[in-house]
Amino acid sequence: MNTTPLHDYERTVHFADTDAAGVVYFANLLRFCHEAYEDALAQLGVDLRQFFSSSGLIVPITEAQVRFLKPLYCGDRLRVRIDPQRLDNSCFQLTYTLYDATGNRVAIARTQHICLQLPQRRRGTIPDPLREWLKSAPATASDRQP
Amino acid sequence: MNTTPLHDYERTVHFADTDAAGVVYFANLLRFCHEAYEDALAQLGVDLRQFFSSSGLIVPITEAQVRFLKPLYCGDRLRVRIDPQRLDNSCFQLTYTLYDATGNRVAIARTQHICLQLPQRRRGTIPDPLREWLKSAPATASDRQP
Amino acid sequence: MNTTPLHDYERTVHFADTDAAGVVYFANLLRFCHEAYEDALAQLGVDLRQFFSSSGLIVPITEAQVRFLKPLYCGDRLRVRIDPQRLDNSCFQLTYTLYDATGNRVAIARTQHICLQLPQRRRGTIPDPLREWLKSAPATASDRQP
Amino acid sequence: MNTTPLHDYERTVHFADTDAAGVVYFANLLRFCHEAYEDALAQLGVDLRQFFSSSGLIVPITEAQVRFLKPLYCGDRLRVRIDPQRLDNSCFQLTYTLYDATGNRVAIARTQHICLQLPQRRRGTIPDPLREWLKSAPATASDRQP
Repeated sequence: MNTTPLHDYERTVHFADTDAAGVVYFANLLRFCHEAYEDALAQLGVDLRQFFSSSGLIVPITEAQVRFLKPLYCGDRLRVRIDPQRLDNSCFQLTYTLYDATGNRVAIARTQHICLQLPQRRRGTIPDPLREWLKSAPATASDRQP
Repeated sequence: MNTTPLHDYERTVHFADTDAAGVVYFANLLRFCHEAYEDALAQLGVDLRQFFSSSGLIVPITEAQVRFLKPLYCGDRLRVRIDPQRLDNSCFQLTYTLYDATGNRVAIARTQHICLQLPQRRRGTIPDPLREWLKSAPATASDRQP
Repeated sequence: MNTTPLHDYERTVHFADTDAAGVVYFANLLRFCHEAYEDALAQLGVDLRQFFSSSGLIVPITEAQVRFLKPLYCGDRLRVRIDPQRLDNSCFQLTYTLYDATGNRVAIARTQHICLQLPQRRRGTIPDPLREWLKSAPATASDRQP
Repeated sequence: MNTTPLHDYERTVHFADTDAAGVVYFANLLRFCHEAYEDALAQLGVDLRQFFSSSGLIVPITEAQVRFLKPLYCGDRLRVRIDPQRLDNSCFQLTYTLYDATGNRVAIARTQHICLQLPQRRRGTIPDPLREWLKSAPATASDRQP
């Protein structure tokens, strides 16, 4: 595994992300977080097409939370930082901090994931590049709890 | 196959369908059409989970068109009528007319579909309940062309 | 206000709701919850187009949480029950329980909302039909916490 | 206006873009095209939040078409080139060619737009940076028609 830390994910708010209240539709914030997770996996060398398919080991999300701090508008530039945490052999948690272009926090989110082996959906172990990434995380993270 | 004609698909416009211009995001009209197609398949007795999976026979869309006649707002009630048409042994076309609560047309759309056999993606024949449905359509349809 | 209790929201899982893992994309569960909220507001006589616009009183979501209990597939039939709770003069919380066709819980979710008066985004009071709905809720609810 | 030609829009296919058939959901291709349009406007110096709001001059899409040439998978890298064309004082058309990482065309699409002045929705004239962009386009474009 690459030992340089992963870079943050950056993305512009699209028109399709917004709703009739003129801001980003609330559930789409979690899409931005998942995009950041995909980007991190790609940086770790994971084949996204294979990883996010319906065969072999699957890694569904068991829980998600998001706290909204500021409204986001079409054209806004976002940066998402992920703080990963291993929970046990099969489970891990990702904490996301979303920043706007001026560096202010606009949202905090968290997802919990479990590794399951298909077809029986039995608990599997966290696969290699992910496990290394989780190891690389500090034992404590100040703003891990949204 | 059931010989009674299929009933139209009805649906309310959700907040998530809208964008910051206050109306339904343009590409979502095609989602409404696809929902109507799924609803028609369900009425024909098709198992949607199996039909829309990544194994066996797949039926991808090769072309889609939509013409927007009136803006749609959150809470609006829609009705979608489908006019199906067989093109050849593997291909068919669906024409959608979307009406608002007062019966005015708000959009017209069309999708073209091809039946492919996985894993080689070779042309397959239109499966049974669909074929019957296509047969049931009149030979000509006045507003088939959007 | 109508004193008959609101009926649950029902909805079929659409193809567009799914992802390449073959099940509903996680963040879309929160869309289903919001649709149920819109349906409840419509039952209360609220004009959705006006309520979900960018003028006057807005009611943004400040926090959302969801716990996934079972995977959902294209064509699955869902029922969403909302348990509303007033938090203070400006804030309320909605707890959603999602059931499949056999009555099993498939997900639990919660959203928190704040009433803000535009253009200054100052705290406003919960508007009438919503306030009545929140009053109608039992003081305690067994599975209010997801 | 900047006289250097606009650069193409690049984007990775996200998991949320896919459906249970394992590929990008058909209507999402039009989202990618609209993102490319937003990106072009941003390059022209347009304030996206203002442009895509519900006040002043609005520029709704009146028609959209898309032809699918190859399936797209999660993680695929896309490039979208826009070929703009002025139709009259109020209307213009954008033709999109989508390429994969190896330079193969994966889809072709087209949208037609009309400038309307709110609140009466009367025809308005194409605003300045857009007009310049449309002028910069060649009189003929070989693959303008999808």
